[in-house]
Amino acid sequence: MTLGIRRIAIIGMGLIGGSLALAFKAVKGNTVEIIGIDTNELSLFKARQRGAADSVTTDHKAGVIDADMIFLCTPVLQVTSLVKEIAPFLKPGAILTDTGSTKRYLMEQITAILPAEVHFVPGHPMAGREKSGIDAADEQLFCNKWYILTPATAASAQAVESVRRVVGWTGARITVMDAGNHDWCTALISHVPHIGAAALVNLLTYSEDQDSSIKLAGGGFRDTTRIASSNADMWADICMTNAEPIADSLEKFIHIISRVATAVRQGDRACVHSFFVAAKKRRDELLEMEQMVTEQPLPNGR
Amino acid sequence: MTLGIRRIAIIGMGLIGGSLALAFKAVKGNTVEIIGIDTNELSLFKARQRGAADSVTTDHKAGVIDADMIFLCTPVLQVTSLVKEIAPFLKPGAILTDTGSTKRYLMEQITAILPAEVHFVPGHPMAGREKSGIDAADEQLFCNKWYILTPATAASAQAVESVRRVVGWTGARITVMDAGNHDWCTALISHVPHIGAAALVNLLTYSEDQDSSIKLAGGGFRDTTRIASSNADMWADICMTNAEPIADSLEKFIHIISRVATAVRQGDRACVHSFFVAAKKRRDELLEMEQMVTEQPLPNGR
Repeated sequence: MTLGIRRIAIIGMGLIGGSLALAFKAVKGNTVEIIGIDTNELSLFKARQRGAADSVTTDHKAGVIDADMIFLCTPVLQVTSLVKEIAPFLKPGAILTDTGSTKRYLMEQITAILPAEVHFVPGHPMAGREKSGIDAADEQLFCNKWYILTPATAASAQAVESVRRVVGWTGARITVMDAGNHDWCTALISHVPHIGAAALVNLLTYSEDQDSSIKLAGGGFRDTTRIASSNADMWADICMTNAEPIADSLEKFIHIISRVATAVRQGDRACVHSFFVAAKKRRDELLEMEQMVTEQPLPNGR
Repeated sequence: MTLGIRRIAIIGMGLIGGSLALAFKAVKGNTVEIIGIDTNELSLFKARQRGAADSVTTDHKAGVIDADMIFLCTPVLQVTSLVKEIAPFLKPGAILTDTGSTKRYLMEQITAILPAEVHFVPGHPMAGREKSGIDAADEQLFCNKWYILTPATAASAQAVESVRRVVGWTGARITVMDAGNHDWCTALISHVPHIGAAALVNLLTYSEDQDSSIKLAGGGFRDTTRIASSNADMWADICMTNAEPIADSLEKFIHIISRVATAVRQGDRACVHSFFVAAKKRRDELLEMEQMVTEQPLPNGR
């Protein structure tokens, strides 16, 4: 099947944009043309050097002209002004997609700006690492990871299919969800755990013997709080653009912890025990479920 | 230097007791005699088979007679009744130590029971794994891990030194702390993180789209919540025997999370951002501190 996707523009040649570009080139070689766009000239230089782009530019408008598909890989809060800037230069029938961690906010913002003849198919690759930037980019970054698409119900089925095929080149497991649903699920499985890890680290400030706490905090504590070392700006943006699901889920999390704290203080072993048993049972279910999913063949035949 | 420690009894030949025994035999061979004690005959059979014990018995009293040092490696809430049972059979000058995760509770309990001529030096190896039992025992389990001793201020310096030397055979990094201090530090860096991970898993129950949440919960979520798969009984015991530090720390944790939840709901990006910046800064300090500690030569010359 020919997709009619010959020219792909990627705005933001960092970890995500660079990894997408490397994966596309690895699979499609010269049958697809990649235009790398970034305000950082060093990132562009490195992207060329690594073979991630056929041409590069710091000019957003010039870069997107004639592109069949455009990937927005910038921080979430930069996306809206970026789309305002490039919208007049997108060709009719072009397909726009993004890689932001929160989806409803961006859908509302972008749908209001975009010309009717440009298709928007929001996306969220659930892949990342502690390091960022083009140096950390890796053509295998998305392989076997979830890549969620959250098109509006009115979105063109053909545009969704095109994004699905192109993203499929990365080896990702693609799934389609409602944007609001996506935001609630990721609040629970990603945003709240992240805030929890950062809160655990900040809790050490309350220690009466900080030196000993810090000294002993290797091993398990270091691993549990690994995600607390991530980019503060990116996470502040995530919190701002997914406020209701995050705040609601944090309040439920607080409720659960409060009940445990009360049971611990009252010496209610049965209550504390059932809390740990429930967690162990549910996590074992998760592992089983994950194994089932992993054993299914990849939908994109990679 | 001769320690006068020739005969070591280990009560509870599971992961911790079995790993101690294997490490002692690996370093000292036949110059030390290990008596493996457990109510589970299969564990004893396997301990002999793996060379972890020179002799084994299900009879606590018979096993501890003539032992120079006794390691209690049973669940915390079994220790008190166990010490009551064996106390009359311990020889004068014998040194008793334990491996429980909470220390003040046990010190109070055991000090009240133990004859004056038996020395008690509480210990806590900060090592473990998801698997338990003698099958999971490993002579390297404690290597480079913290092993905390919390002797009472009135404890015999010679007894403390003896435990330090014997534990040193495992390659652990040994540090001495006040028992109460230990309990507050471990509440912050181990017990609260554990409860937090279990709470994150239980939070999934609140998801309106549980199937999607569970499907997407691989990767980061699975890693962050790994400790939630641990033994529920052991953790209920830890909560019961370290109630005040855990409940207090949970309340501080709740306070931190509540402030973030409010800032998220109010769209206060500056507050949320500074929360993430503080966490990243503190975690980077932890890693630096850990590297400094790791670069120091091991105190026991292993």
